[in-house]
Amino acid sequence: MNDAPGTHTGAAPVTVLGLGRMGSALAAALLAAGHPTTVWNRTPGKADALAAAGAVRADTVADAVTASGLVVVCVLDHAATSALLEPVAGSLAGRTLVNLTSGSPEQAREMAAWASGHGIGYLDGGIMTTPEGVGLRTSMILYSGSPEAFAAHRATLAALGDPIDLGPDAGLASLYDAGLLGLMWSVFGGWLHATALVGADGVAAGAFTPVALRWLTTVGGFLDRYAGQIDAGHYPGDDATIDVQLAAVEHLLHAGRERGVDGRLPELHRELMAKAVAAGHGGDSYARLVDAFRRP
Amino acid sequence: MNDAPGTHTGAAPVTVLGLGRMGSALAAALLAAGHPTTVWNRTPGKADALAAAGAVRADTVADAVTASGLVVVCVLDHAATSALLEPVAGSLAGRTLVNLTSGSPEQAREMAAWASGHGIGYLDGGIMTTPEGVGLRTSMILYSGSPEAFAAHRATLAALGDPIDLGPDAGLASLYDAGLLGLMWSVFGGWLHATALVGADGVAAGAFTPVALRWLTTVGGFLDRYAGQIDAGHYPGDDATIDVQLAAVEHLLHAGRERGVDGRLPELHRELMAKAVAAGHGGDSYARLVDAFRRP
Ligand SMILES: NC(=O)c1ccc[n+]([C@@H]2O[C@H](COP(=O)([O-])OP(=O)(O)OC[C@H]3O[C@@H](n4cnc5c(N)ncnc54)[C@H](OP(=O)(O)O)[C@@H]3O)[C@@H](O)[C@H]2O)c1
Ligand SMILES: NC(=O)c1ccc[n+]([C@@H]2O[C@H](COP(=O)([O-])OP(=O)(O)OC[C@H]3O[C@@H](n4cnc5c(N)ncnc54)[C@H](OP(=O)(O)O)[C@@H]3O)[C@@H](O)[C@H]2O)c1
Repeated sequence: MNDAPGTHTGAAPVTVLGLGRMGSALAAALLAAGHPTTVWNRTPGKADALAAAGAVRADTVADAVTASGLVVVCVLDHAATSALLEPVAGSLAGRTLVNLTSGSPEQAREMAAWASGHGIGYLDGGIMTTPEGVGLRTSMILYSGSPEAFAAHRATLAALGDPIDLGPDAGLASLYDAGLLGLMWSVFGGWLHATALVGADGVAAGAFTPVALRWLTTVGGFLDRYAGQIDAGHYPGDDATIDVQLAAVEHLLHAGRERGVDGRLPELHRELMAKAVAAGHGGDSYARLVDAFRRP
Repeated sequence: MNDAPGTHTGAAPVTVLGLGRMGSALAAALLAAGHPTTVWNRTPGKADALAAAGAVRADTVADAVTASGLVVVCVLDHAATSALLEPVAGSLAGRTLVNLTSGSPEQAREMAAWASGHGIGYLDGGIMTTPEGVGLRTSMILYSGSPEAFAAHRATLAALGDPIDLGPDAGLASLYDAGLLGLMWSVFGGWLHATALVGADGVAAGAFTPVALRWLTTVGGFLDRYAGQIDAGHYPGDDATIDVQLAAVEHLLHAGRERGVDGRLPELHRELMAKAVAAGHGGDSYARLVDAFRRP
């Protein structure tokens, strides 16, 4: 960081709007990758550390936006993003806006339409890591929206984490993001339930978790197989049937009751399995339960 | 398989009681590893293929038990196991019984006490794979019970999958098994919900699942960190707070409602998060929710 940002010749200039926990991590990763980085935050003090590390502090959103061809926004929510950007639509015209603020797919599509109406290149994104994971190749950052914008800025975006291209429908990054977070909360719930269960018999979370992590790899193999079944609409129960799993869930419920562990999560699983069995699908694989989640 | 089983000198003889999908896979793996293998099943025809592959077929449970120092049982449930073994307790004395039938921890401890009363070495187990995974090093088979029995038969049991020693409390293999299956159903549920969600916007399960599998690795890293927090009883929210996740779950619920996807699973997660926030823990990490599962 001995060069003034203006003296960089290779790396493209980038602006980051929003310097909360996540925005600060994004700006720091861009700086670390050598990009001349302009930053702005509503509460200006949050730019101090980044400015000390070589970022250019902008006094207004308009100044920030005109400093770079690529503008990344990461604030609290969709309402904050719109309020911030609508007044500077004219300045954004001809540039690329990458929206890394979390929101719904519908909000992302609305932003994409707004951007398109103002001649702004638009990518919506989903950051699949915490601030500490920003900049690591193992971290996925999902993008959807303008294919031209993705192609033009892919190399720059790689400084934030591995860029995953979900195609032209701007809503998909948010949709994947929501679905993946739901998967995460389900993993957390199942793991916390199990940790409470074994903990009741004196097993430390630190002893149980390595076994749980190894098991997750095995379970991942089942998902891989079941994905093919879902796309084929055919659910052969040749590995393990819903019937067998409905019997096994009773052991979990029993063990939980004996130990006073909250059973609502496994009870929900049991209910879904029992409904499939009642519908005559007991000999199918668990993937058949996708029907229980889909619009009837 | 050209040698008659009796001519094997190195590998220890093993008996397998129960030749359903799983018992057949266990017997086949033992045969493949060169163990003289004696088999019995209530419905005798299920032994045909194994007998053709070199197994010795026993006509009675008593004959089967006396053929080997190590007896593996894998039938439907605890009731079937007890009914099968109680009449041959005398023949089992001095041998090791490995019970791979699924059951509750309480049933496992009951079997261990019964075995101990009859001078039978006892190991309870949990098979963390499907029949196709039996015999693979990547598959975990959990064991708990007699340390002497585990030490004596570890090498033989390795033919079935990687043997994981959970120590002397015979109930722990079943307790882990139940908890891990609960984790699996939670993963399945979260993944099916997400698959239904993205599927509503035209994304194939086969396109979504590789991203979900990669994300599971990231989530596994969170579990690793959270396990330490649970054992320390201290839940710093320095990566992502419950507050932030409670805001994000609304996007998932919204996206699900728009697409007619069953929302009970994410609603349960939201309820747990909201309760923690109401109790003043919104700034903590998600690991704090272990309290929501534990006996109050
Ligand atoms: N943290 C994570 O692990 C993570 C992971 C993935 C995605 N995200 C997403 O990233 C986004 C930011 O999260 P964060 O963790 O950085 O949150 P944070 O630390 O709470 O920061 C929030 C940021 O939004 C700004 N802001 C809020 N309301 C605003 C408004 N009306 N106008 C202008 N700026 C406003 C704040 O500015 P002030 O400083 O002036 O308050 C601050 O810069 C969220 O959408 C979040 O869902 C976060
Ligand atoms: N399949 C899996 O993926 C899997 C994974 C982990 C654990 N397990 C556990 O392994 C055990 C066996 O499962 P499986 O998949 O092999 O089931 P399965 O194919 O339905 O076979 C059940 C076996 O139990 C026998 N049996 C049932 N009632 C009996 C009784 N009263 N007396 C004697 N034998 C009786 C059956 O004999 P008949 O042939 O005479 O009916 C058959 O051999 C279960 O506890 C299961 O939870 C299975």
